[in-house]
Order: sequence, then structure tokens, then C-alpha cells
Amino acid sequence: MDLTEKSRRVPEKILLGPGPTPVEGRILRAMAEPTLGHLDRDFVAIMDETRDLLRMVFQTGNDLTVAMSGTGSAGMETACVNMIERGDKAIICSHGVFGSRMQDVAGRCGAEVVEVNAPMGRPIDPGDVERAVKANPDAKFLGIVHAETSTGVLQPLDEIANLAHMAGMFMIVDAVTSLGGMEVPVDRLGLDMVYSGSQKCLGCPPGLAPVTVGPRAVEHIKGRKTKVQSWYLDLTMIMRYWGQERFYHHTAPVNMIYGLNEGLRVIAEEGLEARFARHRKNAESLWAGLEALGLELLVEPAYRLPSLTSVRMPVGVDEAVVRGRLMEEYSIEVGSGLGDLKGKIIRIGLMGSGSSRKNVVLLLSALGAVLSGEGFANDVGAAIEEALAVIDG
Amino acid sequence: MDLTEKSRRVPEKILLGPGPTPVEGRILRAMAEPTLGHLDRDFVAIMDETRDLLRMVFQTGNDLTVAMSGTGSAGMETACVNMIERGDKAIICSHGVFGSRMQDVAGRCGAEVVEVNAPMGRPIDPGDVERAVKANPDAKFLGIVHAETSTGVLQPLDEIANLAHMAGMFMIVDAVTSLGGMEVPVDRLGLDMVYSGSQKCLGCPPGLAPVTVGPRAVEHIKGRKTKVQSWYLDLTMIMRYWGQERFYHHTAPVNMIYGLNEGLRVIAEEGLEARFARHRKNAESLWAGLEALGLELLVEPAYRLPSLTSVRMPVGVDEAVVRGRLMEEYSIEVGSGLGDLKGKIIRIGLMGSGSSRKNVVLLLSALGAVLSGEGFANDVGAAIEEALAVIDG
Repeated sequence: MDLTEKSRRVPEKILLGPGPTPVEGRILRAMAEPTLGHLDRDFVAIMDETRDLLRMVFQTGNDLTVAMSGTGSAGMETACVNMIERGDKAIICSHGVFGSRMQDVAGRCGAEVVEVNAPMGRPIDPGDVERAVKANPDAKFLGIVHAETSTGVLQPLDEIANLAHMAGMFMIVDAVTSLGGMEVPVDRLGLDMVYSGSQKCLGCPPGLAPVTVGPRAVEHIKGRKTKVQSWYLDLTMIMRYWGQERFYHHTAPVNMIYGLNEGLRVIAEEGLEARFARHRKNAESLWAGLEALGLELLVEPAYRLPSLTSVRMPVGVDEAVVRGRLMEEYSIEVGSGLGDLKGKIIRIGLMGSGSSRKNVVLLLSALGAVLSGEGFANDVGAAIEEALAVIDG
Repeated sequence: MDLTEKSRRVPEKILLGPGPTPVEGRILRAMAEPTLGHLDRDFVAIMDETRDLLRMVFQTGNDLTVAMSGTGSAGMETACVNMIERGDKAIICSHGVFGSRMQDVAGRCGAEVVEVNAPMGRPIDPGDVERAVKANPDAKFLGIVHAETSTGVLQPLDEIANLAHMAGMFMIVDAVTSLGGMEVPVDRLGLDMVYSGSQKCLGCPPGLAPVTVGPRAVEHIKGRKTKVQSWYLDLTMIMRYWGQERFYHHTAPVNMIYGLNEGLRVIAEEGLEARFARHRKNAESLWAGLEALGLELLVEPAYRLPSLTSVRMPVGVDEAVVRGRLMEEYSIEVGSGLGDLKGKIIRIGLMGSGSSRKNVVLLLSALGAVLSGEGFANDVGAAIEEALAVIDG
């Protein structure tokens, strides 16, 4: 350890991977405000406002809307441990790493997991869900990932939510990479338990997991026969801390809540619709530019996320070298492939303040130059022209 | 919601309760450094240094020493979910709210919990532990709280650790309110699984749980027959992220790690022995001053924590009014009683940078004035004289 420099300086990098995403200075500065007690009157006011703002981005009136004291994966675990009791049957869909993770987590809660799977890069087929629902009328839950971070696939939810609800099942939805960047139709579709993470389209540092729970799911949780297996994530107690009672549960991560509060204020100022449109337009611009570079996108247009795009690497180009050069030469972070897609794709995120005309142009220029250096000929000028035509057209 | 002010301003308060504790400006500013990716080379270097610094405060050479992505209670849950498999027997001691919480958490992990209890304000009697160990030779674990935050009791560990190890049991120790303020003898006593929180004597904001695991416990965890019931807190995966492999598990709370890193650098600069001596001296000074005010301390001298002091409220004085006035008139936060001690005591913490001559004098002056206003006559001048005599003597 060299402690001769008293304080560290962290270099600035441009986060255009699957998350964390760029955090605006005013959000970072909010985190540096003085720490308050977790039961302090002024802190409780910030919690209340944060809950109201979370309801705005979740587009819900759900009373039980909180930020769990952990990252997005803690949100997934919150959903599973609170809803599931040992022996319950759950249909869990997987079309990527995070769907498979949900199957794993549900299994650790003692669920009998019925898997409905789709290949990475494709959405879940509602016909497969329908067959699973019919074959398992005793299943209590249907879990699915709205925005699969390992592939960039947007999962349409309308038909599947309808199937689940017709069968009396609760819908558990992973909105980690969609919340704040596109519609997450919690109330419109009656989604029962939805979780996300602070470090994607909400544009905050990682460390908090927003969760919203519908009234039927709240009753289900209150009616459990057994204790929630996780004390730390037990909503039956946490709802009493976020509610008027202010029951002491655990010490909330106070400064992280400041950051989330500020990030949600940024969203309120921009407006949800404007924010969704911005994410959509910049993504479409990026797609046009990438295709003009001669690259192939993993996901077909109808199922692409506005927040995250997977790009196949051309034959003969080493994706690790491309990512390494983007970082070394441009301080740009993009993501690698996960699971079956390791070595085959890179993942480009345009989330929160990172979704900008500037970053589209920068990424295309840098990627084009790096690929050219790796022997993949391309025309950066044409790619930028195509990209800007989408934004300005 | 009033969003007319663009950014919030959080008022400064003096945190002299059971935690969170005062956070130095340089630690807050470190948290506002730019967010990096959780697999970024520069971030990984900060993780490595943080691990080395955590080993310093834990006074251990344990390879598996990490900061879990949750608050101190997540540290407790990490200890229980990783060590315990369903059906295992565990002797868990309780002499306050946090020992009782450990009994609850162990039960949720499927443990058969053997309770050894002591009244709040007293330490656990090693004789009681000896009887429980003899009566339960099949117990695998002995769990105990080193520094009981609900009472301010310091639990001597030497004799109990010896009893547990002689019987082949693993020692699980809660060091939430001791780590960084006094010796936590991890290697000296061979404590197998020890956890803490960032927001007490480490002087950082809440949100991280330092954990260290001894080599025998690591082998025990690796040899589990069943999966850890918490995916989020599963050390079999997390050790691969903090180790050289950098296996992706979950997105670490990057900016919180910056803060912890900086807080640990502050400790390294002061030196552990000097820091422990400072906590000890200021606590003794506070005790002398409180007694000179005519107040009774809950815990007898031999078992008092240097970090946290419980003070009985005089008959006829409403502790909630005292706490309210300390906040309203002096912006000082102190803690209320928990459990059986609710309404009977206040808890005064002198932790991290909060353990200072200045705060001893301020607290005694403010408390004396408030108590006087509530009809409890006292001599503030004499109390401060007694307190300073301890520091300067």
C-alpha cells in the first residue's frame, strides 16, 4: 500500500457498458452531503420524497414502494424471499443470465421451479408460457426479466401478464435495465412485484434496489405461514420503517439515499416521457450507426432495448482487444458477453445521462477506429452520418 | 413534493448516538469521486487496497476479508447463511437486541438454536456458555455479540472462544460497534467469522459490512452440502470476485467502497493503537463527567464499551424530551433505549472522528443544561472539570 497521497483521485471514464452508467456531478455531490441519522426527521423527509419519486418512475400508486439497501441482485432476492415459501411452485422464465439467476434464487428459497427458457438474444415465447401455465395450475408465481442485461432483449409483458393473472398467479418482474429509460407498466399490467437497480437508467451509483409491491402481493406477504428466510430483506419489517411507524429495522444507507433522491429529481425535471423518447432516439441512432459500420446486432429490431445494445464482433476480431483499446485509448467502458455469448459480443449501454448525441458519435468514432486497427475495414464518416440522420430526421 | 430548489441541502448534525457516526469531509468527498465500472482496473486496485486495510483493522491475515454490499445487519446475515445449513445446531448468546437478532437470523437459516441469555446491561456469563457447550456437544457454532449496541456492554471473548474451540465449534462474532474503536482479536483468539458495519467506529456512512473469515471457516463453507440460501450474500461466489479471478457476481456499490477506502486510510494514518487509546480516554472522560452530573451509567466499569455509553435517565425525566431538546437546541443526536430499555436510557456514542475532547465537553454542557431545564439539578462546571481531569490527567 502506498499511502503517501492522502486522498485517492479516481480517473474519469465514460461508462457506456451495461452498468454502472455515468453519474451526474449533482448526484455525486448529493452523496457527499452530511450523514444524518436513519431516524432523523430531516432524513425521514428525504425518504418520503424518494418514495414518491420512485412511484413516479414505476408509474404506480403502490403504497409499498421502497429502496432496498443492496444492489439490483438484492432486489431480485427481495422479490423471491418475500413471495415464496418452501414448497411453492414458481414458473421462472429465462432468456439470459438474469433469468437463470432468478431461477437459482427462487430455488434457494425452496421453490419448485418450472423453467421456461428461450435462447439468448430472443424473448420468451408467450406460447411456451401458456403451455407451462396450463401444465402447472398450482404454480403461484410467474417470474420474468423485462430487460435482459446479458443480451439487450426487451421482453414484451402484456400477453404474459395476462396469462399469469388469468391463472391467479403473481407476476414477479426484473426491471433492472428498463426502469427510468422506458415504460415499466406496473399499474397498467398489474405487475405484482417489480424490482430494479439504482445504477442503470436511473443514473445513480450502484447500491440500492428500488422495489414496488402491488396490494395483492402485500396481502400475500402479510399472510405468509413462515418467516421470510432473509431477515435483512424482510418486507414485513421494512414496510414498517418506510411507513409512518418508522419502526427501526436496520440502519439505512443514508448517503446512498441522498444520491437516489437527487437522481430521481433529475428524472422529474426532465419528465418521464421526454426521458423515454431520448433513450429511444439515441438507441435508434446508435443502431443505424453500428449497422453502417458493417456490424451485426444480436437482437432483432422489435425486441431491442433502448438502454442496451449487443453487437456481434466480426469474425477474426477479438472482443477483449476491442474493449481493452476502447478503454486505453478513449477511456470508454463497454461490456463483454456473458454466458454463451462470452467472446462473441460487446454490450453498449446508453442509459441515464449517458444516453446522448455526444456519446453516440463518440462511441461510433472510437469503435470504428479500433475495429479498423484490428483489420475490420469500415467507414466512420458514413456511420456518423446515418446516426445523425436518425436523431435529426 | 416541492422541487423548486433543484438540489437538497442537508443540515449538519452532530451524531453522538449509536450510529451512524460523524463522517469526515474527506470521506464524503471520496464518495463523490466519479463512478467506475465494478470490473474496472482502477476500481479493482481500490478493492485490493481496501481489503488490505480491512485486514489491518481486523488485526488478521485472513485471506477472505471483504466488504459485503449491505449494512451491518447484512454482515450478520452473511455470517449465518454461509456457515449454517438447515438442521445444524447453533448456540447463540444474547445480552441485548443484536444477540436476539442473531438468534432470529440463525433460526431463519434453519438452525436449531440453543439460547444462552443474559439481562440487558450485563455480559454473557462464561459459566452459562460452558454449560450449554457441554449439554450440546453436537452444536457446530457459537455466536456472540462483542459490542452490544443496544446496551453498551463489552463482552469479554477470551474464555468463551476457548470453550467453543475446545468443543470444535466455530466462533461467529458481531463486531459492529467495536471494529475500529478497540481491539477485535480475530487472529489472537482464532475467531472464525467476524462481521461489522461501516457506520460505527470506522467513521464511514452506513451501507457496507466488513467481514473476515478464518481458514477453517472457509473450508467449512466450501464443503457445504447445500447451496447458501442467500444468492446475494453467498461467499462461495463473492470470494471469487474479491480474489484474483474477478468473477462477476453482482455490481459492487462502487462509491461506497471509495468512502470505506478513505475511512480506512484515515485509520491507517492515525494508527490502530493511537485510535484505540483515543476512544478509551474520551469514553473514560465522558463517564466521569456523566457521573459528576449525578447520572447513573447502565453498565459497570469493567464491561463498558469505549464506543458507546448507556445512561439511565433520572426518575421523572422523559428521555424522549431530553433527546428532542438535544436535537432542537444543539443539533446533537443521541440514541433511545431499545427493547426492555426503551424509555429508560439514552445511548451516547463517541465513535470515529466523533470521539473527541470537543464532543465530550459539548455533550456534557448540552445534556446538563437540558436536564436542568427538565428539573434535574446538576453542576455542569464540575462535570466538565471531572471530564477534563481524566483527559489531561
